[in-house]
Amino acid sequence: MRTLYHLPFLPSCRKARLVLGEKNLEHELKVEKIWEQRSEFVALNPLGEVPVLSEPNGAIIIDGQVICEYLDETYPDQPLIAGDTLQRAEIRRLVAWFDNRFFNEVTQNLVGEKITKRILRLGEPSIAAIRIGLESINYHLQYLSYLAEQRHWLAGNQLSLADLTAAAHLSAVDYLGDVPWDQHPSAKQWFMRIKCRPSFRSLLNDFIPGIAPVEHYKNLDF
Amino acid sequence: MRTLYHLPFLPSCRKARLVLGEKNLEHELKVEKIWEQRSEFVALNPLGEVPVLSEPNGAIIIDGQVICEYLDETYPDQPLIAGDTLQRAEIRRLVAWFDNRFFNEVTQNLVGEKITKRILRLGEPSIAAIRIGLESINYHLQYLSYLAEQRHWLAGNQLSLADLTAAAHLSAVDYLGDVPWDQHPSAKQWFMRIKCRPSFRSLLNDFIPGIAPVEHYKNLDF
Repeated sequence: MRTLYHLPFLPSCRKARLVLGEKNLEHELKVEKIWEQRSEFVALNPLGEVPVLSEPNGAIIIDGQVICEYLDETYPDQPLIAGDTLQRAEIRRLVAWFDNRFFNEVTQNLVGEKITKRILRLGEPSIAAIRIGLESINYHLQYLSYLAEQRHWLAGNQLSLADLTAAAHLSAVDYLGDVPWDQHPSAKQWFMRIKCRPSFRSLLNDFIPGIAPVEHYKNLDF
Repeated sequence: MRTLYHLPFLPSCRKARLVLGEKNLEHELKVEKIWEQRSEFVALNPLGEVPVLSEPNGAIIIDGQVICEYLDETYPDQPLIAGDTLQRAEIRRLVAWFDNRFFNEVTQNLVGEKITKRILRLGEPSIAAIRIGLESINYHLQYLSYLAEQRHWLAGNQLSLADLTAAAHLSAVDYLGDVPWDQHPSAKQWFMRIKCRPSFRSLLNDFIPGIAPVEHYKNLDF
């Protein structure tokens, strides 16, 4: 059986789940409490991080982006990094934008402060960090809106890993109710389209004990 | 003309330079003082970050890893992400290891504190951060030694982007004299082999005003 070791609120894991879903690859999900440093898990990944993908043939793939590249190369139906080398670079540019800049400015400051810190018992969330996250998200939603107005999907006419990566981050922030959708209608339209996809269903059923999702989290029409 | 906008001490830029060198792609280097936020440069990359590659046909490629993937796909001679999809995942796993974990634990704490902070006038280096960097590097050099003892190059029998990425980080730290090579002889042997390659020459001529490199920085036999 194919198994993805994951944590439900980490965008790198959500991205891998969306790719598995888009490619209709059967899999089971195992929540891995990485802070417990379970020895069988550290044997799979010496870094002790999720996501880790265990393939039916026993192959172990480590790191969110590496898993996505591997899945796209190994199961080329429904390609998510498609096109000529320039188009592929555009997809990867946006993936890197969300996984690096958006992660540092938004995801870490909101999901990291409100969810990760609580689970790891690292103390109270930093009000200053949350303020930076809530301010920064507007700039990113403006850029996302600009892309969504120019193109059918973020990197071009086809759904790509860029959309899934952006949605992986935004859905985690959305759980907290921290995405100002109403101020960014084009971004909201794009998110509604991606939220309707069958690959998204698994994410909508996520529940973090002690932290209820925002009321509209599960609604496809919000 | 092909142009790489870069900063000499950033591993993401050094990695792109090594790939350009391995593929014998003629190019010119332009140092981009990103903190000046030059408007012509921000027009190329709205994130204002280096490296940025400007191709002879006018195409603009952004982000260190994206540039490397693009160059490897566009100029497939001397492939640096070669092999079946599992082998490619192993190369990318090690690339991610150095660009994420090694960067956060070592490069940021040493190069970030001693070079970046000085250039950006962000104050004195943090002694605590430097101590973490000097301690952490040993764990990474142990793992690198383990790989170099099992395999001819880090990801297998062929030189790959994993070697160039590791060398990009280690060469920046080595400029400061902060790599304890003598305690890690297998890692040192590997680094001597990669340092001899013509692609490395451009890095050995780097000079950061006000910070002299360690005495052995330019020596191929150190």
